[in-house]
Amino acid sequence: MKIIKLTNEVSLARDIETGTESQKESVHTIIRKVREEGDRALRDLTKQFDGAVLDRLFVSEAELENAYDHIDETTLKALRKAIENIRTFHYKQKRESWITTHHDGTMLGQKITPLDSAGVYVPGGKAAYPSTIMMNVIPAQVAEVEKIIMASPPDQEGNLSPVVLVTAAELGVEHILKVGGAQAITALAYGTETVPAVDKITGPGNIFVALAKQAVFGDVAIDMIAGPSEIVVLTDDTANPEYVAADLLSQAEHDEMASAVMVTTSAEIAERTKLEIEKQLSRLPRKEIASASIADYGAIYVAETMQDAVEAVNKLAPEHLEIITKNPHSLLGSIRHAGAIFIGPYSPEPIGDYFAGPNHVLPTNGTARFSSPLNVDDFTKKSSIISYSKEAFMRDANDVAAIARLEGLEAHARAIDIRKKKSDDE
Amino acid sequence: MKIIKLTNEVSLARDIETGTESQKESVHTIIRKVREEGDRALRDLTKQFDGAVLDRLFVSEAELENAYDHIDETTLKALRKAIENIRTFHYKQKRESWITTHHDGTMLGQKITPLDSAGVYVPGGKAAYPSTIMMNVIPAQVAEVEKIIMASPPDQEGNLSPVVLVTAAELGVEHILKVGGAQAITALAYGTETVPAVDKITGPGNIFVALAKQAVFGDVAIDMIAGPSEIVVLTDDTANPEYVAADLLSQAEHDEMASAVMVTTSAEIAERTKLEIEKQLSRLPRKEIASASIADYGAIYVAETMQDAVEAVNKLAPEHLEIITKNPHSLLGSIRHAGAIFIGPYSPEPIGDYFAGPNHVLPTNGTARFSSPLNVDDFTKKSSIISYSKEAFMRDANDVAAIARLEGLEAHARAIDIRKKKSDDE
Repeated sequence: MKIIKLTNEVSLARDIETGTESQKESVHTIIRKVREEGDRALRDLTKQFDGAVLDRLFVSEAELENAYDHIDETTLKALRKAIENIRTFHYKQKRESWITTHHDGTMLGQKITPLDSAGVYVPGGKAAYPSTIMMNVIPAQVAEVEKIIMASPPDQEGNLSPVVLVTAAELGVEHILKVGGAQAITALAYGTETVPAVDKITGPGNIFVALAKQAVFGDVAIDMIAGPSEIVVLTDDTANPEYVAADLLSQAEHDEMASAVMVTTSAEIAERTKLEIEKQLSRLPRKEIASASIADYGAIYVAETMQDAVEAVNKLAPEHLEIITKNPHSLLGSIRHAGAIFIGPYSPEPIGDYFAGPNHVLPTNGTARFSSPLNVDDFTKKSSIISYSKEAFMRDANDVAAIARLEGLEAHARAIDIRKKKSDDE
Repeated sequence: MKIIKLTNEVSLARDIETGTESQKESVHTIIRKVREEGDRALRDLTKQFDGAVLDRLFVSEAELENAYDHIDETTLKALRKAIENIRTFHYKQKRESWITTHHDGTMLGQKITPLDSAGVYVPGGKAAYPSTIMMNVIPAQVAEVEKIIMASPPDQEGNLSPVVLVTAAELGVEHILKVGGAQAITALAYGTETVPAVDKITGPGNIFVALAKQAVFGDVAIDMIAGPSEIVVLTDDTANPEYVAADLLSQAEHDEMASAVMVTTSAEIAERTKLEIEKQLSRLPRKEIASASIADYGAIYVAETMQDAVEAVNKLAPEHLEIITKNPHSLLGSIRHAGAIFIGPYSPEPIGDYFAGPNHVLPTNGTARFSSPLNVDDFTKKSSIISYSKEAFMRDANDVAAIARLEGLEAHARAIDIRKKKSDDE
């Protein structure tokens, strides 16, 4: 891990994988095929890419029930507690429609309506990701989205992992499509004979999933295209280097492109954390990945003052920020850009990744400047409500017509005048 | 205007202008030039496209003051009242950060932070659009965005219209860039010597502006790329055909691609509205545009029942919906998809376009299924807050580590274990 004296030049910017021409070509071929051939294409492509011959495209109730036999009680208890915490937090995000009523009879308001339907993509492969399911499904459920379709690629036997199935069952997800990749995204976007088209697709995936989401964007809504994960740990001389090192490594193990950065006011803590990283790194199962990440995208910046350090954090606009300082809460007001802020020595990032309640789908690559964690609002939309009374209309008519004519839109003005004249005549 | 018996096949879908290859090439050339040459490119391109030799790129205080000489008192009063109404409505959208505190010392929350900066594009040309300025600037101001940069193309003398300047001045916009097109969008996205880069760019524009916004999207946030405008008027046999016709025409005059649609349960009102449209159309200054829109994208659908009519409206998911029926408010719950809902005979769309308070930047082309009117949230972002106490950490540590290991992320589990062990040892 490099230790660098802080200057103005801090950045998390990395080259994000945008797909090769051949990958884009493949995705467009898949999209065309699924739109033309529907379910048949889903079966063919699942055979081709996942090696599975699917009997039925959707998980059956029996499969869901049997999955419980493969989960131990401790795991189930942990998953249930996580679900409860995540639900509790997201319920607080829920917003109601509102309306204002005025003495003149006018009513103005904002109606909040859930999306009709949402699709949640869950990556497959060797690992199972129960947290992905929770973090994408729960905000949609809290928003009261009526139809939620989950999609995940099966193994060669055509099965999803028991952990994935149990997590979905615990959440009450009823429709689980055993299809992955660009073919799943296309089915969710446009529908097939058995897969209903949804209004929004969320969830992470490989480059083919990301390219497919970009391609269908506009016809349906999508969440962000997430870049590699990032953490910035902000410390002073009170931080425990063992903790900081462990937290940096927990980010670095995700991906060779992941970025683990420390910003500190203490040169001593910088040195000690660097040594701790080396020590802990050597004992990690995923040490190859973590080493590459630390070498290429890791850094420890040493700042002259806490103010400089905070300014660097705001420039970095990290996905995850940990503040481990003497008085960490006092810095909250000065942090302008971060996806999630973990405060104090007992809030390591994994607490938020899995358990505390806030969402782990967060803006990466500096987009925390203008983007938010996935949240309940993302599964609703607003409609404005305008209800004018005759009295209010008559009062405002001339002003409205005047502005319409200022913009050269005579028919707009006449839609006002025709009512005004009629009412004046009465 | 065609009268059509309602079937399941209703749609507002139109081919949206996506730009020719040559237009895309031009935009990319402009973007490259502005990124490389900065202010010099802005001057060169403004000379080339607008015929104006700019002395300074930004509007001066003297220009703002002088603009008031060209605005009459009535207009100024109308603009001021509109600004007041729009501000009042948008203040109601404002959200506060929140935090929950727990007995075990844990705090969880959601911090709302305004974007640091926003750019607002205002089209130029023959007409001036004060409402565009208000509808884009006010939500940003209410969100407390510190730096707002407006950009609009100048006339050949290098001036902006007095109405535009006065509206900006009334709103307190301090930075007004006299540059338009793709060059303005690039300057706002990446900055130049004198133009600061912003976090988000909003506002309508021609195809070059739209293509430039698409190209910079990701490096900065943008609002939607708006399609042609739309209205659907839902009526029963109580509607006044003169009003409905005037409202449909007020939409049709925008653009040959605009869509004006009526959905009614009354065949008689359908016929009478059709006749009224012909009558009113012939007297409109923009009758060529409105005729083309009505002929190509206008329709009157006659439904058997109000339930069928409402279902058609939800399928159309219109940008603007007027409900002119006997008991219009009672239908609000069954309308699931519409950008803005105008209720009753005294709420013609221009009331909302200019004056009532809600935003006129609305989702088009069916995207009201999943998108919202421009609003204060669009100029803020959320950050999650996670502050665990030692007590809460010790309680949850095993559960968190268990889920981390379930996902195969050992370093995540160790970031938990290292703290747990240390605390157990104490």
